[in-house]
Amino acid sequence: MRIYADNAATTRMSQAALDAMVPCLQEVYGNPSSLYGRGQEAKEILEKARAEIAAVIGAEPREITFTSGGSEADNQAIRSAAEAGKKAGKTHIISTAFEHHAVLHTLEKLRKEGFDITLLDVHEDGLVRPEEVEAAIREDTALVTVMYANNEIGTIQPVAEIGEICARHAVTFHTDAVQAVGHLPIDVKKEHIDMLSASAHKFHGPRGIGFLYARKGIRLTNLIEGGAQERGKRAGTENVPAIVGMAAALRASAEQMDAVAAVQREQRDRLIRGLSEIPHSALNGDAERRLPGNVNFCFEGIEGESLLLLLDDRGVEASSGSACTSGSLDPSHVLLAIGRVHDVAHGSLRLTLGDDITEEETDYIIQSVKDVVEYLRGFSPVWRDLVSGKAEFIL
Amino acid sequence: MRIYADNAATTRMSQAALDAMVPCLQEVYGNPSSLYGRGQEAKEILEKARAEIAAVIGAEPREITFTSGGSEADNQAIRSAAEAGKKAGKTHIISTAFEHHAVLHTLEKLRKEGFDITLLDVHEDGLVRPEEVEAAIREDTALVTVMYANNEIGTIQPVAEIGEICARHAVTFHTDAVQAVGHLPIDVKKEHIDMLSASAHKFHGPRGIGFLYARKGIRLTNLIEGGAQERGKRAGTENVPAIVGMAAALRASAEQMDAVAAVQREQRDRLIRGLSEIPHSALNGDAERRLPGNVNFCFEGIEGESLLLLLDDRGVEASSGSACTSGSLDPSHVLLAIGRVHDVAHGSLRLTLGDDITEEETDYIIQSVKDVVEYLRGFSPVWRDLVSGKAEFIL
Repeated sequence: MRIYADNAATTRMSQAALDAMVPCLQEVYGNPSSLYGRGQEAKEILEKARAEIAAVIGAEPREITFTSGGSEADNQAIRSAAEAGKKAGKTHIISTAFEHHAVLHTLEKLRKEGFDITLLDVHEDGLVRPEEVEAAIREDTALVTVMYANNEIGTIQPVAEIGEICARHAVTFHTDAVQAVGHLPIDVKKEHIDMLSASAHKFHGPRGIGFLYARKGIRLTNLIEGGAQERGKRAGTENVPAIVGMAAALRASAEQMDAVAAVQREQRDRLIRGLSEIPHSALNGDAERRLPGNVNFCFEGIEGESLLLLLDDRGVEASSGSACTSGSLDPSHVLLAIGRVHDVAHGSLRLTLGDDITEEETDYIIQSVKDVVEYLRGFSPVWRDLVSGKAEFIL
Repeated sequence: MRIYADNAATTRMSQAALDAMVPCLQEVYGNPSSLYGRGQEAKEILEKARAEIAAVIGAEPREITFTSGGSEADNQAIRSAAEAGKKAGKTHIISTAFEHHAVLHTLEKLRKEGFDITLLDVHEDGLVRPEEVEAAIREDTALVTVMYANNEIGTIQPVAEIGEICARHAVTFHTDAVQAVGHLPIDVKKEHIDMLSASAHKFHGPRGIGFLYARKGIRLTNLIEGGAQERGKRAGTENVPAIVGMAAALRASAEQMDAVAAVQREQRDRLIRGLSEIPHSALNGDAERRLPGNVNFCFEGIEGESLLLLLDDRGVEASSGSACTSGSLDPSHVLLAIGRVHDVAHGSLRLTLGDDITEEETDYIIQSVKDVVEYLRGFSPVWRDLVSGKAEFIL
């Protein structure tokens, strides 16, 4: 059996997305900025895709700017709000300790440029408290940026509440919704979201394309200077085939959202029950307020990397956290942010389920993880110390 | 007859690129940063493509950073050199007046940040003089950035000479080679190029992907912050299918380069001879030192936009200049830079030929342009003034 359980890293393209994109790669090669018919045809296709994408999140087409992906959208959103804030004398930004690095590293750069950054606690359950957002807002707050759902532990933040607070205080609110778009129902107007980042390959669209929603009235700063594409806010020839693929993927994801979520939720909860039977293990993040397809556990006394390699041998493709930080030996900043100590955070496992995950597959994953954890603990010196009482169990 | 003659705006994907990319879109969905087999397989495919691309321009694989396209590569190259320069107390940058806007707008931003920008004259023939580059270099020069071949008039710059001068003066040299890669033989080492930008869709690869070559030792600044992809220099999940498509397109372009150039050059020169027969017309840019597929003319007394629309009616798809600035009513900054006055620059036509352009097609283009120019002049008040002697002919 082979089970791809790393859908938070990247998803397989849907047939709908492929069917829309491939003919476009072959045939729609006009440059949307060109005057002749073939260019104008490409322009129409582009604008139709923009309108479709906008509709899914309750936005206007002109509020959508296409980017090369979620990271670029995050960078541009934060840079834009920072620049606008600076002009108005506001240099304070509120975020959280467990954002994606596209957000955290941008904030780190801004800190060096003189911005004051407040990173809110996300508590043990991986949830930001709206009242703590409100308490952190100051006269000089330019931006609140809180992710919609965490990419490692899947916890879904109280975005509408935070949006309402920001609107009340007239502070710009951005959300990195890379893990949420296509998986959760989103309405940017009802949730008072000023800016939102999304990435197509997280919802069965192609790689290399994403979008930034920015409410009418929000002034974007260019990250990439050049031609006048995207109303002058993002230079570079429009990637029409990928945009068309993204629109088709998002439409399909939106249509199937409830059905997929129901399937995933059932298997997610079955997985959580099954993996909880492993001694000295713990679920990371709230059990209820999490993405339908996300399971994230810590197992004491083992190394995440060995766990992944042995699971791969058994056909289970998973990760220890964000793919963006693989290769790093540091434990996940997300797990540290919810209070896991270094050693425990090292033994983490993220399983992010496919749309059609079955009970049989779930049971196979549970058994595989149980076996591999037991096997690894068998020759782990850390585990030996724990069992012999030389060290104390934390979980 | 329908002839696509706007290949400088964007090219049709080659069969080789499609054949490489489409299966990858369907099947290679592992995240190259993931540990399991499917991720590592994607990583191998990615690195193979990087090595192939590097080989075509005489670079090392690790000197290639993938970007979302040429504009991003230009932005990152210039930002990187500017930041490195600033740290060393060097805030002078040399460029030319007819660079692409991805370069010019980035320089404009740097000027506002305190950099001193020298834009060199490109003379009537559209060629930068190496000795003028050398004369402009100062103690505090951080960067020379001169495009390899101009995107509107196709003139090929003396890059190797400029590179040699920069190397001698220990000044970083970047070239926007978006129009050159895949069309001209390039060897970054022999030509002393420190940084080079390229875009796949200009050489029959997919849109939304490009690369930045940066010589070992050049320190890149991130434009997009986030994950540790591309050695930490460009965040965002790697767009493996597009990268594979780009590598295949570049390989094919390199293999066919001489044969295609010979075909194009013959038809280009036939077009130049034919269009020169139109009274009060002029070729823009040097006739010899230009891209094999580029023809750019000015016709006095007409509007470029009407010319394009009527040519489209006859099946000839062309442009008046850069697609990136279409929609703007300003005349081309490139044509102004080579000394064309506003009125003349408005009546411009760029024809950029396909790889398999035939004599029959060329003759059809010539006849169409002749007919349309004559027709438009027939009711142009500007032309009437010229003919009646009320205004003076410039061409």
